[in-house]
Amino acid sequence: MHALLDQARTMRLYTMDAWVSDPAVLTDEPALRAALHAGARAGGATVLGEEFCVFANGAVTGVLVLAQSHLSLHTWPELALANVDLLSYGDVRGDDVLSEIRSRLGVERAAVTCVPRAVG
Amino acid sequence: MHALLDQARTMRLYTMDAWVSDPAVLTDEPALRAALHAGARAGGATVLGEEFCVFANGAVTGVLVLAQSHLSLHTWPELALANVDLLSYGDVRGDDVLSEIRSRLGVERAAVTCVPRAVG
Repeated sequence: MHALLDQARTMRLYTMDAWVSDPAVLTDEPALRAALHAGARAGGATVLGEEFCVFANGAVTGVLVLAQSHLSLHTWPELALANVDLLSYGDVRGDDVLSEIRSRLGVERAAVTCVPRAVG
Repeated sequence: MHALLDQARTMRLYTMDAWVSDPAVLTDEPALRAALHAGARAGGATVLGEEFCVFANGAVTGVLVLAQSHLSLHTWPELALANVDLLSYGDVRGDDVLSEIRSRLGVERAAVTCVPRAVG
């Protein structure tokens, strides 16, 4: 039980709002899918499942279910904007996840936060 | 474009860490699935897809892909704890989503935040 409590204490949410230099990537569903999987891999997370949806304007929402919770992406092609969220615990390296995604999406500017969870 | 910018300005992330009175619900995958769908319905969100995973200890991770982004749940049965995250925009009523889920899970205590996104 103590080990589990220690694990729960590492639960945290990373959020990233990222503006890209070339919005074409934000409607490229295979590239976005590859970026999410590469991000998970870079941070040492284990992917257990996924769900993707492409919208009429080309925007993409994609979610990976992880052994350590989830990693999601939602794109706004007309705004050159992507929202990325990673809920994780344990030894997932969230910074590495986001860094890999930033690199693959050609991110120019990003607002990143990391918030501890379940501490109430 | 102005309408889209106005829509992006409503982008927000709700997070809820919720402690339940009876942890049995946290391993009841059909009940959790129903709670997420009912929450989405209560808040006026449109569900486009889902992905669920049940872990060896009975914990459940579930994600609904919404027309307005995503709604996710991760349970920690041994801690009587559920993490719920809703990323949404437009006229989704996030408080109604969380309220419906709280009611269905028998939540005793919850820490809720609502953070504006993509304002950088």
